[in-house]
Amino acid sequence: MIISPRRKRVARLRELMERGGVDALLVTHIPNVFYLSGFTGDSGALLVEQSRATLFTDSRFTTQAGEELAPTRIGLKIVKGSLGAAAAGAELARRRFRGRAAFEGARVTVAEAARMRKASGGKIRWRAVVGWVEQLRRVKDEDEIERMREAAQLGSKVIVEVLSLIRPGVRECDLAAEIEFRMRRGGASGPAFETIVASGPRGALPHARATTKAFRPNELVVIDMGAILRHYCSDLTRTVYLGRAPSRVRQWYRAVAEAQVAACQTLRPGAPCAAPDSAARDVLRGYGLEKAFIHSTGHGLGIEVHEEPRLGRGQSLPLDASSVVTIEPGVYLEGAGGVRIEDDVLVLPGGPEVLTDAPRDFLEL
Amino acid sequence: MIISPRRKRVARLRELMERGGVDALLVTHIPNVFYLSGFTGDSGALLVEQSRATLFTDSRFTTQAGEELAPTRIGLKIVKGSLGAAAAGAELARRRFRGRAAFEGARVTVAEAARMRKASGGKIRWRAVVGWVEQLRRVKDEDEIERMREAAQLGSKVIVEVLSLIRPGVRECDLAAEIEFRMRRGGASGPAFETIVASGPRGALPHARATTKAFRPNELVVIDMGAILRHYCSDLTRTVYLGRAPSRVRQWYRAVAEAQVAACQTLRPGAPCAAPDSAARDVLRGYGLEKAFIHSTGHGLGIEVHEEPRLGRGQSLPLDASSVVTIEPGVYLEGAGGVRIEDDVLVLPGGPEVLTDAPRDFLEL
Repeated sequence: MIISPRRKRVARLRELMERGGVDALLVTHIPNVFYLSGFTGDSGALLVEQSRATLFTDSRFTTQAGEELAPTRIGLKIVKGSLGAAAAGAELARRRFRGRAAFEGARVTVAEAARMRKASGGKIRWRAVVGWVEQLRRVKDEDEIERMREAAQLGSKVIVEVLSLIRPGVRECDLAAEIEFRMRRGGASGPAFETIVASGPRGALPHARATTKAFRPNELVVIDMGAILRHYCSDLTRTVYLGRAPSRVRQWYRAVAEAQVAACQTLRPGAPCAAPDSAARDVLRGYGLEKAFIHSTGHGLGIEVHEEPRLGRGQSLPLDASSVVTIEPGVYLEGAGGVRIEDDVLVLPGGPEVLTDAPRDFLEL
Repeated sequence: MIISPRRKRVARLRELMERGGVDALLVTHIPNVFYLSGFTGDSGALLVEQSRATLFTDSRFTTQAGEELAPTRIGLKIVKGSLGAAAAGAELARRRFRGRAAFEGARVTVAEAARMRKASGGKIRWRAVVGWVEQLRRVKDEDEIERMREAAQLGSKVIVEVLSLIRPGVRECDLAAEIEFRMRRGGASGPAFETIVASGPRGALPHARATTKAFRPNELVVIDMGAILRHYCSDLTRTVYLGRAPSRVRQWYRAVAEAQVAACQTLRPGAPCAAPDSAARDVLRGYGLEKAFIHSTGHGLGIEVHEEPRLGRGQSLPLDASSVVTIEPGVYLEGAGGVRIEDDVLVLPGGPEVLTDAPRDFLEL
């Protein structure tokens, strides 16, 4: 008998609950609800107990939730409005539940927690737990890895296509529109985040939006983009130069490319999550660019574009096999521009597998 | 002297704070931070006091925040990582602040509140308040109304354009890609939400995603879309029929169109927020379709696609002049499809102004 990935995920969560002394966990973070149940609506709460699991959502999602929950053993309750967490609390109270109940402390707001406590009538002692489902999501299963490969391939294909469209006079926002259109046509439900196209001095802002600025000769262009495909994200960055680059720009690019390789080489199960960041910084220091690298080296990727693990200074947790992370060192020079190279990498015992296969050679267009 | 809209907004918030007995309000909800400060980064916290205001964000946003805060009187503190709320708490503790401090209870998670309390060292008594900035945002100022007009016009223009592309064989996702591409080219930073294109029986799901299903002759197509333009959203829906519609489908359309007009006519300052919903339901009841209308009639619109006020049953708050709301009755018939018509409407003393000007006649393509 084949057990569906979602039933395995719920089973693993129940192990965490048992070890953590929790009889009922209320999951309200929508990506966590999707991970465990397959429900793709944007409003709902999943109550997981050892012997059952129930999704609470509203009437807009009745038909859809019925279809999506069919392969699972999760029950469905339709409630009024979008107060899933409170409804789940009320349900526990109605059943005179006397076990140990928990909610997602890093996801439930102070006001929601108050409503939930009120709805559950004071006899249930709620405990806040943090990161339980997120901990499971650090390790991707086969179904997830397959989806992430596809999302990464789509992102890689599109970025290669649009590089040929970069020329003086084209606007940043036009290129962003092309990128998002091509990802959509390739099956994406949308961009994983607002596509960044930052040219010239704007490249010194790591999170620059695409504007109506047109590309000009002799400037760097940073493109940071990703697709959501079958609910999983990709996230990649390439930097090109319009014209023949001066030697200092080539030097920046070489430094970032070397930093990226060095960071990737540290990725193995059991290595500390800070290792890729240290490796990237060491390389940049050798080029005198350590102060130009103003963010951390990467982050986990999956249903959300930023998830666990974080790859920055002070992260002592070990890397897991089958995690997918970004590796994205960059340098940012105020007034001049930026260089960033980013790939999505699967951590495996035999060595890292880079999922994004767009070329990384320095392109002078 | 011209006082910028943002300085007026902060001044109005300070009045609310004074009336509410709060000396320092920590604003962490990013749309609220943008509304008050103009900061467009996705990570930061704004501490508003009577005599000063300070934005806490991290090093990725240093240059950008400096530029965006220039027209305001808001100070900037760069902190490590993305722990703005905790950093603001620590800052109050460092200054030996002894006033009454509050945070946004409906936006701060239980875990964040705990970190904030810890960082502020136990001497500050934090109080959770709900909806203060959101209350200000219900009433749009001139600058906002101008932006919303533009976002509504862009949405209207694009939906009219793409209706001509609907024919048998075109896939839902292709139409969604066209819509999002054209909005982007028109200056949008992205869609206000994942564009809905739901054809045939899929139209019975109010929140159906666009899939690879191709349009077929003799079915309804529901398109629900909107743009984010200069940080403000539009949200509109049109429904068309591929072929010559049978009389029952025409009847559904007529019922929804009448319900929408009736709902719009109730929109005036001071009317209860439940009035448009009752009016729409009354019309649909006359057609025997009241059970087919499975969601509320509309919602406020602005920086976020769903904001205050809510236009549903039981909403007794009065409507404000200069609110912008959607009016979107619909009917959903399982197995057959759906009809929804949605416009964005500005509430004015002299009568409602519909911002989305795409035609509403029943189109048989």
